[in-house]
Amino acid sequence: MRIARYAREGQIHYGLVELEADGGPHPQTVADLTGDPLVGPVDLTGARHDLEQVRLLAPVLPRSKVVGLARNWAPEADPPGEDDFPEVFLKPNTSVIGPNDPIVVPRRGPNTVLEGEVAVVIGRICRQLPLQRVPEVVFGYTIANDVTMRDFLAPGGPWGLAKGFDASTPLGPWIVSHLTLAQAGQLELTTSLDADPVQHGSTAGLRWSIERQIAYLSQVMTLLPGDVVLTGTPPGSCRIAPGQVVTVLVEEIGRLANPVVAEV
Amino acid sequence: MRIARYAREGQIHYGLVELEADGGPHPQTVADLTGDPLVGPVDLTGARHDLEQVRLLAPVLPRSKVVGLARNWAPEADPPGEDDFPEVFLKPNTSVIGPNDPIVVPRRGPNTVLEGEVAVVIGRICRQLPLQRVPEVVFGYTIANDVTMRDFLAPGGPWGLAKGFDASTPLGPWIVSHLTLAQAGQLELTTSLDADPVQHGSTAGLRWSIERQIAYLSQVMTLLPGDVVLTGTPPGSCRIAPGQVVTVLVEEIGRLANPVVAEV
Repeated sequence: MRIARYAREGQIHYGLVELEADGGPHPQTVADLTGDPLVGPVDLTGARHDLEQVRLLAPVLPRSKVVGLARNWAPEADPPGEDDFPEVFLKPNTSVIGPNDPIVVPRRGPNTVLEGEVAVVIGRICRQLPLQRVPEVVFGYTIANDVTMRDFLAPGGPWGLAKGFDASTPLGPWIVSHLTLAQAGQLELTTSLDADPVQHGSTAGLRWSIERQIAYLSQVMTLLPGDVVLTGTPPGSCRIAPGQVVTVLVEEIGRLANPVVAEV
Repeated sequence: MRIARYAREGQIHYGLVELEADGGPHPQTVADLTGDPLVGPVDLTGARHDLEQVRLLAPVLPRSKVVGLARNWAPEADPPGEDDFPEVFLKPNTSVIGPNDPIVVPRRGPNTVLEGEVAVVIGRICRQLPLQRVPEVVFGYTIANDVTMRDFLAPGGPWGLAKGFDASTPLGPWIVSHLTLAQAGQLELTTSLDADPVQHGSTAGLRWSIERQIAYLSQVMTLLPGDVVLTGTPPGSCRIAPGQVVTVLVEEIGRLANPVVAEV
């Protein structure tokens, strides 16, 4: 299923996105749900809307955290050993925006870059999770753009400003809940700046696989339903500027596009 | 006022901590409130309990973020200039524990250290806040221990694991809402490991003053009610080990004590 969060007539809803009847590539309707599927059981309300008639929002607003892995796209590297640890950073929920929402390049951060990623949405509280139980806690997958102010990556300093500023975490367009971990580990991703592809890779190139990321993180911190894990970005991250549009396309998930504007 | 969050008979309450009638130094009762003062107006319910009969919890569980400033205790340094920026890191709400809750030293982090701090609790949503309006958004002050796994501070790497692990952010014992910013900028802090004082300083030694921290952060990220800002730790941060007790004492606020245990 494709689970979307959307606004319509001033209300926020969750819904299932359905493909057009002829099996074409473009989802066209959203079937309204009775509540938030990350919080409890839901049912269809029976209402159905044209996808063009609603405003898609970030499919999840984490109650706790967005966790990201740095420098994790390394197809040629050995898999991590017993004593290795992933390079982990945090982004606050105040940085999350939805599809088509503007990425605001801060006045203080002219060297702001795009980072297209596959994101994992956690569905169940977990801690100290063995590798083989990771599938039980994955709610689904969505697309993220881990926008970063490189200006604030001082050597040896923390990354809170660089990664935590408002509108730096576009998420969407929806959560795909039907992929297996094996399928999620083989997704092709392409990030484009306007019409130009700038990043391309497959999640098969992640040094820390999705499965190992989730298991490792759960050794250190409790993961909660709605937490989001940014799995790593392929090479090609580049500067973005007001007036451009960043599009991250991931097969089996969809397309996340956001215009870039200047901070006023 | 001293605003506490506490558990009693399986329920979570907020309450006002009251000094004993003779004006002695030890608060003794808590007067129950109708709700969460960070969310909306509250009133006294009329119930009052002996402080020894309730379990104090972290006085706030942030819905969004804990933000901290690194290397910010520098009494001899010049105040930051126009182009300077504070060294900012994030901690997730899953790292927050309350007074007397155990700090769990991770198996993977034997070099885990204490960092006693004064913490600011934000009371109002804000963004792009001018310096002179900072007092309007400060709900109050509490004490924090920014426990850190130094093992995970790889050079040039992000600090997510080092600062984000479970039980790494003791907060409490309550929020003091009656201090002015000027008073908060003159607080003496002492951290002790068992009976030995290891850190001592005054918030007058913060390079980025509390006022400037909040104003700066609000330029970059939206601050929400319940967000917590860790203002910086004095010199003397040192390793902690299972069996020890860490106590952070801040004048005008109180005393935050937490035992240290090993991860099992």
